[in-house]
Amino acid sequence: MSAGSLGRRLVLTSFGESHGKCVGAVLAGCPAGLALGEGDVQEMLDLRRPGLSAVSTARKEGDAVEMLSGVYRGRTTGAPIAMLVRNEDQRPGAYGETASKVRPGHSDYPAMVRYGGFNDHRGGGHFSGRLTATHVMGGAVARKLLREALGVATRSYTVRIGDVAADGPGGKGGRLWTRRPPPASAVYSNEVRCPDAAAAARMREAVLAAKKGGDSLGGVVESVTTGLPAGVGEPMFGSLESDVSRALYSIPSVKGVEFGSGFAGSLRRGSENNDPYAVRSGRIVTATNNAGGILGGLSTGMPLVLRAAFKPASSISLPQRTVDARARRPAVLRVGGRHDPCVVPRAPPVVDCMVSLVLADHALTGGFIGAVL
Amino acid sequence: MSAGSLGRRLVLTSFGESHGKCVGAVLAGCPAGLALGEGDVQEMLDLRRPGLSAVSTARKEGDAVEMLSGVYRGRTTGAPIAMLVRNEDQRPGAYGETASKVRPGHSDYPAMVRYGGFNDHRGGGHFSGRLTATHVMGGAVARKLLREALGVATRSYTVRIGDVAADGPGGKGGRLWTRRPPPASAVYSNEVRCPDAAAAARMREAVLAAKKGGDSLGGVVESVTTGLPAGVGEPMFGSLESDVSRALYSIPSVKGVEFGSGFAGSLRRGSENNDPYAVRSGRIVTATNNAGGILGGLSTGMPLVLRAAFKPASSISLPQRTVDARARRPAVLRVGGRHDPCVVPRAPPVVDCMVSLVLADHALTGGFIGAVL
Amino acid sequence: MSAGSLGRRLVLTSFGESHGKCVGAVLAGCPAGLALGEGDVQEMLDLRRPGLSAVSTARKEGDAVEMLSGVYRGRTTGAPIAMLVRNEDQRPGAYGETASKVRPGHSDYPAMVRYGGFNDHRGGGHFSGRLTATHVMGGAVARKLLREALGVATRSYTVRIGDVAADGPGGKGGRLWTRRPPPASAVYSNEVRCPDAAAAARMREAVLAAKKGGDSLGGVVESVTTGLPAGVGEPMFGSLESDVSRALYSIPSVKGVEFGSGFAGSLRRGSENNDPYAVRSGRIVTATNNAGGILGGLSTGMPLVLRAAFKPASSISLPQRTVDARARRPAVLRVGGRHDPCVVPRAPPVVDCMVSLVLADHALTGGFIGAVL
Amino acid sequence: MSAGSLGRRLVLTSFGESHGKCVGAVLAGCPAGLALGEGDVQEMLDLRRPGLSAVSTARKEGDAVEMLSGVYRGRTTGAPIAMLVRNEDQRPGAYGETASKVRPGHSDYPAMVRYGGFNDHRGGGHFSGRLTATHVMGGAVARKLLREALGVATRSYTVRIGDVAADGPGGKGGRLWTRRPPPASAVYSNEVRCPDAAAAARMREAVLAAKKGGDSLGGVVESVTTGLPAGVGEPMFGSLESDVSRALYSIPSVKGVEFGSGFAGSLRRGSENNDPYAVRSGRIVTATNNAGGILGGLSTGMPLVLRAAFKPASSISLPQRTVDARARRPAVLRVGGRHDPCVVPRAPPVVDCMVSLVLADHALTGGFIGAVL
Repeated sequence: MSAGSLGRRLVLTSFGESHGKCVGAVLAGCPAGLALGEGDVQEMLDLRRPGLSAVSTARKEGDAVEMLSGVYRGRTTGAPIAMLVRNEDQRPGAYGETASKVRPGHSDYPAMVRYGGFNDHRGGGHFSGRLTATHVMGGAVARKLLREALGVATRSYTVRIGDVAADGPGGKGGRLWTRRPPPASAVYSNEVRCPDAAAAARMREAVLAAKKGGDSLGGVVESVTTGLPAGVGEPMFGSLESDVSRALYSIPSVKGVEFGSGFAGSLRRGSENNDPYAVRSGRIVTATNNAGGILGGLSTGMPLVLRAAFKPASSISLPQRTVDARARRPAVLRVGGRHDPCVVPRAPPVVDCMVSLVLADHALTGGFIGAVL
Repeated sequence: MSAGSLGRRLVLTSFGESHGKCVGAVLAGCPAGLALGEGDVQEMLDLRRPGLSAVSTARKEGDAVEMLSGVYRGRTTGAPIAMLVRNEDQRPGAYGETASKVRPGHSDYPAMVRYGGFNDHRGGGHFSGRLTATHVMGGAVARKLLREALGVATRSYTVRIGDVAADGPGGKGGRLWTRRPPPASAVYSNEVRCPDAAAAARMREAVLAAKKGGDSLGGVVESVTTGLPAGVGEPMFGSLESDVSRALYSIPSVKGVEFGSGFAGSLRRGSENNDPYAVRSGRIVTATNNAGGILGGLSTGMPLVLRAAFKPASSISLPQRTVDARARRPAVLRVGGRHDPCVVPRAPPVVDCMVSLVLADHALTGGFIGAVL
Repeated sequence: MSAGSLGRRLVLTSFGESHGKCVGAVLAGCPAGLALGEGDVQEMLDLRRPGLSAVSTARKEGDAVEMLSGVYRGRTTGAPIAMLVRNEDQRPGAYGETASKVRPGHSDYPAMVRYGGFNDHRGGGHFSGRLTATHVMGGAVARKLLREALGVATRSYTVRIGDVAADGPGGKGGRLWTRRPPPASAVYSNEVRCPDAAAAARMREAVLAAKKGGDSLGGVVESVTTGLPAGVGEPMFGSLESDVSRALYSIPSVKGVEFGSGFAGSLRRGSENNDPYAVRSGRIVTATNNAGGILGGLSTGMPLVLRAAFKPASSISLPQRTVDARARRPAVLRVGGRHDPCVVPRAPPVVDCMVSLVLADHALTGGFIGAVL
Repeated sequence: MSAGSLGRRLVLTSFGESHGKCVGAVLAGCPAGLALGEGDVQEMLDLRRPGLSAVSTARKEGDAVEMLSGVYRGRTTGAPIAMLVRNEDQRPGAYGETASKVRPGHSDYPAMVRYGGFNDHRGGGHFSGRLTATHVMGGAVARKLLREALGVATRSYTVRIGDVAADGPGGKGGRLWTRRPPPASAVYSNEVRCPDAAAAARMREAVLAAKKGGDSLGGVVESVTTGLPAGVGEPMFGSLESDVSRALYSIPSVKGVEFGSGFAGSLRRGSENNDPYAVRSGRIVTATNNAGGILGGLSTGMPLVLRAAFKPASSISLPQRTVDARARRPAVLRVGGRHDPCVVPRAPPVVDCMVSLVLADHALTGGFIGAVL
């Protein structure tokens, strides 16, 4: 696990910049024999693509993936899988001003310090949310691998935008999707990717209102993975929570991650939060799932449940107080360019992919998936 | 970064079991020339030691560290530093029952599946919270390294136990410690490690009440690191949030981690959550610190602020429904042994150490600390 | 260091296949601020390019590199540098027969077993010597980094092909290049890359004779690195010998690696092989360099000297006894396609690059090169 | 793979110093369920123990291993296995002089530069050959794992000391042990660990003569591994040759490594060096084994054959020219202490262990061994 890559057995290396030639990924360690084509990756990329709706950035990207290696006659070969998406609609000119006026909430200032000013600052360069396309490239493969080899499926969806929260299928308050995740059709039938259609409509209004005001919103994405057998993971430094959170925090804007009952669970007593075991149809299960499917860093066989908090998008049209970092004097910044007023609607497929990458990596490490499918 | 170790440049490898011979750690990659002795490590170990107070387990451990290598004439040599604490007071007999009756909330069941029943189940074995002593062994070195080389200091403290929340120095609601962390004297002057003395007293009562009822409590630890220069960290997979959260989630019982404004920040607008830059005494700072000192995965130069949620301790005396995992039939379990009714009071030094390990690793990677002090 | 990549701080990830779309590389961890363009890489690629002379394969490859990321305004940014060479002249049809008739001396049989037959067998696929183009892509950057940052230069050259051995500048027997490496002009002025012009002519004849006979030759490449300061490297598992040999053995056909006096040195007495220290112009040097510039895994400040043995090229036109691995019955194989009758003439720039990648990685790890040039 | 450790799945971390408290190792990633006790490790340690014979150092070390973790009820648990050998007979006083008079052939000078003089120089400290005891601790476990799980066995033995070469069982010149390795009884029945008893006697004489003259000898160890299935390994950077050579070069004094026909093979034609395939008893084999059991970095199913060249021991009693590195002026050094006049007799079990560690690591990575035995 070098700093620039994710995973031990299934290793994702990402490259590219927001306004450079392309973004791309190399996924090494995928078992041989998995049926795979560009369509499998394109399908996931399309779910996160910008320019789809009124609630997203106006930037248009075809985001057509080219698969460069590692697949032969429609099957993975066991060699590294390289994938590339060319940047079509970059307008670096729009970012000229930000070279020294550092944008609040963005990586501009610390990146300038760290890289001596040599970093590609245009639209955040390598730090841009555009790089999540590379997460999706690798994650789409991991996702298919998990499904084909183990029947594992991850479903992520919006549960809150700003202060508009979704209700679970059981109505007010329940997070009942965590037992049975919503179908893709329910998540992707609206622009904000929320399976509660009524809340989705209110979320959409909230995003449009923020956009109109030159402002932005944040929110929360929940994710449920079913089909994971018990025993996947490692103790301590390689715990599922450690590796999944590491992966989620590599998505720009994520500032909080919790598993199972999470922060709320810390308010309970042990007798309330411990999940009693039971035997159902000969299978050992827990009656509740406050653990979110992970104990001791290992999967319990129950659904893996987590939530990630996204800060409000840093790029806003409202004028902001900042500094000219080279001149070291105060400045006012109006961020131009095209931005998402809220990144949450584009996040669910990215969360799906990060979770899948980590789980596939651990499933390989633990011998739950072999070297050849 | 193998599953069993933490870090890239400064690598911690932990070993040992709760009721085996010892717990120990090897820290590789520490620069040469750091003044270091067993006392430096013992001091931190003493802060987490069980058996200190009414709110902790009755288990008595001298926890006297032996430094085995990597130090010569009172200075680190650049070679791996191995450290060991012998287990003095193990009573494995107390855990006989748990071999097949899996304890709710513990790793017993998934570990049995993963390791084919060969794992040392006594008190959780390698999964035990006792292993956090190894985090502290390595972390104490990292902590001293950061202080000596860069003037960096991490201070962690309890901000909530059960539903008893601390107030910041400014009174109700404020988290004002995040600007200026409390002194060690304020944190360690009470058994629950909370700098708000009034809240600390109520927390203590809450823990004792839970203990009396055979139950347990959880809570939240906050951590503030000062002195970190801007530019420490890596983009994406090596972001400070990624690596710090990975490290924190390797502490048993942690189920939530957030940075800066975290989950609460996701409720705000961008114009509220973005931290405006300013120049103070020629230094670039932010007027607020909702980012918790991290943007784009890199340090901003502002205090690094995070919170970790701990679930209520899994070991409770109340009878619990479980299963006999070998026989696959229902069972009732009464956990014997001696347990913490709340692990939170022992967590602050562990959080200090995990944060320090990650920051020292990144400071080395980024060239902020050299190969020789 | 995952299996598919090389290095800890400066990490090379390679991808591609001999007869697929392309071969490519991602180099992560290069400091920011290095002046770099496609020309720097192209220059090195041209030195290993096939189709240049009578002694190499007839395969024509433009091998024009495209730099995809990590460079902005002519300087490295600190972000991963992705590079790509499209395969222009693949003729996969020529390899149809080898699908099940495994080629002696090639990876065909073990790869078929390992990847369940799903590997891309055409021309060896991901195992092909063509992948050394990706070593060169990454190595060209490492090479420039070492030169700019530290004045380090690696020069590799042919010292034997078949049984034709070169003589050093001092005449018969001396390996005197190991003190002062030959200039590029002497190495690259002939097709076999041997600085002894007379031997080069005989080597050329030997290769042409082997080619005419449908056969192939092997040989030895020597490599000398000057300018490396003392103290670069790590003890034991991270020794310079460990990491350089690991890198060299990732070049197909390498079956032997030795440092300094190597195998011959094992015939000597300690009093002959130990290099006495001396002080020259205030600098500590050794009078001889049997250690090849490495003691205890660390550089001594003397030239780093090594030799790599290349087996005769496995692809020969002569009929060979083999088996049909699927049918498990004997077969006779005539390898078609175009091959190098001897890979040694193309190896020197590849050896240069592998050595440079490892030294740059260690120079970064040891703090000899900083995060920004 | 951090610098201080070896392996990806089965990770060895070594610590300790020649004249410190101890040497030790942590082996992480061993599958659960392997029958293992201190005796398994002690047996291998005893084979390398100094003080056994006239040809070795007079230093007496009981080298009694203590197993600290990872084993429960006689079986591995899947948790890291920590092992320790206390240094009993250190006499650091004997090394006082070497603090600034750097010993030729040793790590003293580059280590002083690298670690700013803070390294433990006594007897080489962490660079000492004594650290090979830690290789053996980890390797003994790997060796047993390979035997129990796959029937794989590595046998290493001396084939040359100084200029005394052994003959294979077929008489003059043949290396016929490479087909069928000699039994342990033949290797360990003499002090120099050479299966050719006649040569062993001459080797012994040569070592004693060198010792008497205050000098030292080097030599060559050959190693043969049988039972390895085809397909173990990885392409390129993770090739078996890459990883085995990396491991062998972490043994102090190794300056050359070759596989199969190695350097000699580079003199042959392809038609001579390629190994023709054949079918024997339904199994695909090669008629010869010039590849040494590795093609494309993967095992072929034939014996894995390699040779390692050891330089003559650097510690000699004869006076040597050196410098006082602090004063930067010439000096004459007489190395005191007790030394091996030739390290080769102690090397075979260490080579066994390094090869076993790498093969077990690859067997785990490739799924040839599962997570539970």
